[in-house]
Amino acid sequence: MFDSIHLMGEGRAGTVLAARLRDAEVHITVGRLPDPEAELVILAVPDRVIAEVARGVPAGPWICHISGVTDLMALDPHESRFSVHPLQTLTLERGPEQLDGAWGAISGETDGALDHARWLAEALGLRPFEVADGDRALYHAAAVIGGNFLVTLHQVATQLMAQAGAPPEAIVPLMVRTIENGFDLTGPIARGDQATVEAHLAALEERAPELVPLYRALAKATHR
Amino acid sequence: MFDSIHLMGEGRAGTVLAARLRDAEVHITVGRLPDPEAELVILAVPDRVIAEVARGVPAGPWICHISGVTDLMALDPHESRFSVHPLQTLTLERGPEQLDGAWGAISGETDGALDHARWLAEALGLRPFEVADGDRALYHAAAVIGGNFLVTLHQVATQLMAQAGAPPEAIVPLMVRTIENGFDLTGPIARGDQATVEAHLAALEERAPELVPLYRALAKATHR
Repeated sequence: MFDSIHLMGEGRAGTVLAARLRDAEVHITVGRLPDPEAELVILAVPDRVIAEVARGVPAGPWICHISGVTDLMALDPHESRFSVHPLQTLTLERGPEQLDGAWGAISGETDGALDHARWLAEALGLRPFEVADGDRALYHAAAVIGGNFLVTLHQVATQLMAQAGAPPEAIVPLMVRTIENGFDLTGPIARGDQATVEAHLAALEERAPELVPLYRALAKATHR
Repeated sequence: MFDSIHLMGEGRAGTVLAARLRDAEVHITVGRLPDPEAELVILAVPDRVIAEVARGVPAGPWICHISGVTDLMALDPHESRFSVHPLQTLTLERGPEQLDGAWGAISGETDGALDHARWLAEALGLRPFEVADGDRALYHAAAVIGGNFLVTLHQVATQLMAQAGAPPEAIVPLMVRTIENGFDLTGPIARGDQATVEAHLAALEERAPELVPLYRALAKATHR
């Protein structure tokens, strides 16, 4: 659908996407100024500068951003526009294969825009699904809760393991297997064991009181 | 160290432990009444009945429980006692190999008790580490936060994905890779992007207000 793509932004996402598109045998250029020959300009820049960068792109090519939370209006005044958000955490220590198996949220205001978004998602190796512009903030909150706050749980659990004199790394096989077992809930909350929950809260009150509201909020949100 | 073990309790943990000990070629009996020949009685019963069951075990053999949160006093009046807590979520859909690679928290009041606890942990295939009786509640809170509350994050994230019209299963590759990438924090909090955090909170206020305190507590606990 696109033979020639220009990508702006050389952070984690920009680097990984450029590598994947090179593998896909698309003619790809990377840099600050859009290649005037490009049929698509991808903005892989920080969310807060998308609107400013978009305004600096000469009219003509399709334009897209890869932000999870930003709406399509940020690409004004361009009208041939869409977005593709890779729902994956990316690292420079891996190559483009880290996109394989991940999903991508696409948005567009016309069927044609959605077709182009779907093409790009698939060229990147992502499984596309549509998210309406008005649902993007909620969708992205879900991504942050599942991904970033998983890091938070690990941070909190390892801190408490260390405070209890236990090896922090011992928590990792439990976290891995919890996912492998399909998020099957075991443990005190699954058993309705309120005495154990109270024992945890008493220990946290004494040793890590700043974590009591977090523990309470998590326990309250847990469905048996 | 023990040639003959009796195990009481036939739930998930009891079933998996019995299978592992059979593999280890220990003479193992399972049931309500302790085998009078047993050198060790393992109580794999619910936390709230450990004390009652322990009081019913005739004096003589070593006795241990496998609870993460319960202290050793619950094994009164027995004095030859210890505990081994497998730090893993267990399912009847897997066999004893699910203990491989997991860690186990051991407690004992004497060097001899700790030696016996270490022997049992290793016979089960666990990597033992010691947790003092007074640290058990904090240790177990860490286990619940890392394991059970990971299920909670998945429950919350998939609920929000569905509300945003996105496929709930799309969150899973992100969660898996977050662990594979060593809990490397990416995303808005890592970038100090407060505008995105505010956009999430506004969307949650409107669409899932019951989750606002949880989001705030998680964001506050996240170390960049």
